[in-house]
Amino acid sequence: MAKRHKAKNSGFVKDPVKLLKAGAGFVLEDAPTDTAPGFIGKKRDGRLLLADRAESLGVLQEQLFAQGQYSGVNSVLLILQAMDTAGKGGIVSHVVGSVDPQGVQLKAFKTPTAAEKRHDFLWRIEKEAPRAGMIGVFDRSHYEDVLIHRVHHWATPAELDRRYKAINDFEARLTDSGTHIIKIMLNINPEIQKERLAARLQNPTKYWKYRESDLAERAFWPQYMEAYQVAIERTSSTAAPWFVVPAGKKWYARLAVQEILLETLTGLGLTWPKGDFNLAEERRKVAEA
Amino acid sequence: MAKRHKAKNSGFVKDPVKLLKAGAGFVLEDAPTDTAPGFIGKKRDGRLLLADRAESLGVLQEQLFAQGQYSGVNSVLLILQAMDTAGKGGIVSHVVGSVDPQGVQLKAFKTPTAAEKRHDFLWRIEKEAPRAGMIGVFDRSHYEDVLIHRVHHWATPAELDRRYKAINDFEARLTDSGTHIIKIMLNINPEIQKERLAARLQNPTKYWKYRESDLAERAFWPQYMEAYQVAIERTSSTAAPWFVVPAGKKWYARLAVQEILLETLTGLGLTWPKGDFNLAEERRKVAEA
Repeated sequence: MAKRHKAKNSGFVKDPVKLLKAGAGFVLEDAPTDTAPGFIGKKRDGRLLLADRAESLGVLQEQLFAQGQYSGVNSVLLILQAMDTAGKGGIVSHVVGSVDPQGVQLKAFKTPTAAEKRHDFLWRIEKEAPRAGMIGVFDRSHYEDVLIHRVHHWATPAELDRRYKAINDFEARLTDSGTHIIKIMLNINPEIQKERLAARLQNPTKYWKYRESDLAERAFWPQYMEAYQVAIERTSSTAAPWFVVPAGKKWYARLAVQEILLETLTGLGLTWPKGDFNLAEERRKVAEA
Repeated sequence: MAKRHKAKNSGFVKDPVKLLKAGAGFVLEDAPTDTAPGFIGKKRDGRLLLADRAESLGVLQEQLFAQGQYSGVNSVLLILQAMDTAGKGGIVSHVVGSVDPQGVQLKAFKTPTAAEKRHDFLWRIEKEAPRAGMIGVFDRSHYEDVLIHRVHHWATPAELDRRYKAINDFEARLTDSGTHIIKIMLNINPEIQKERLAARLQNPTKYWKYRESDLAERAFWPQYMEAYQVAIERTSSTAAPWFVVPAGKKWYARLAVQEILLETLTGLGLTWPKGDFNLAEERRKVAEA
């Protein structure tokens, strides 16, 4: 965890970035869904800390953007995957939403269109890769092609095998060209999902979020968990790691993702560009303008 | 002004939406650049009100988005035009940035690429029109084709004439298909711009925003004002009005644009979708899931 954050006595007593990274031997079944790893404090503490750190995140994002306006090649790509109701939308609105929208490229991947299906699965993904200076956010992603496709046998084992490799090559190429990839799986359990679906049906401002198909996919929970386990095993890398974030406490999931973003951006050693002009000369010209 | 806002004793004693709309006989030269029309209060009051109303804006935006997920056809398109340093970026980060990024389609139009130049000027614009349910934001727009192009004589008078008409037809078509267009000109004067350029050159976190070309365009100020005057005259309509917002006080400009967005969204009579399912039936199915 970066020093600047530790100094604030944040409530994190262990670095969530280390705790949540899916390393060698990772077992999804054993991963927490409803705790707050590394954090000491209640919901209110978490919310205050999230608001407090939003400012640091905003500065880092603006530096990333500013660098991108000059010769900076860095970008960040945050990939969000989860079962329904896990809170992807809340990550986007509460974490990503705290920074300047001018520096964000958000893409929600839906069921591919007929035209998209006539291309390789990565064709539509490549087009949405973030430009230098930007934070790209994928709400669902190319991982659907090894998750829902595996669960419903829409792809053969050989094709799935090809896809894991293709994903690794694709992500390695993005990484090599300056994109820092963060892959997040928001982890909940069936009981949490049931509560949240029921809650949606009790709140008229949430009815619109409910789809009858939600229950249909829920029936495949164990198959989805198996598909996530395999995807995480086959596509975790040092350059593009997976983080499995318990999302039963939404405030914790948001704080953890914010922390992962903060550490990634801090690690880039960003500074403000000096501009490509003679400062004294331009000051003089403006004074005389 | 919508009743709900009046009730909060907002500081607006006259409706800025009416005060700032460029109506018949509008004269840009007489439009204020550094006052706060209709508002009683200081910077601090304005900032508090902006934060207070962000919540209402967020609810309306979410309703718009929710409707778009069903059969709603409404969208909003906020077009921002201004001289450099007027504060377009601040409108995006502080007003648009207060709502969920999932409901925003932001496009910053730069100098057209070689490929774009081989199409009609509206070709690249059409592609960025907001989808149903979305708030589209254009940071610069098709108006550059009748502003900088007029100032530098990159288009003949006949071609400019064609463009004004084409813009009106284009915007009428978007309007007819459900897009509510709001056109904003952030109005400053050369003294304000000079102060802001000088300030950028005194602040190392702002150097990156300064470009030598800023001064070059500044030299054409009167020609730009003439181009804005003509553009506003020729393209103001009831369905797609121009608002000329004094932007010398950034807090006021943000508040005024927020108010215009609030009134536009309030005028749509948005409600939460009921969903396309049998509520009692789905509640039962979830309980048994």
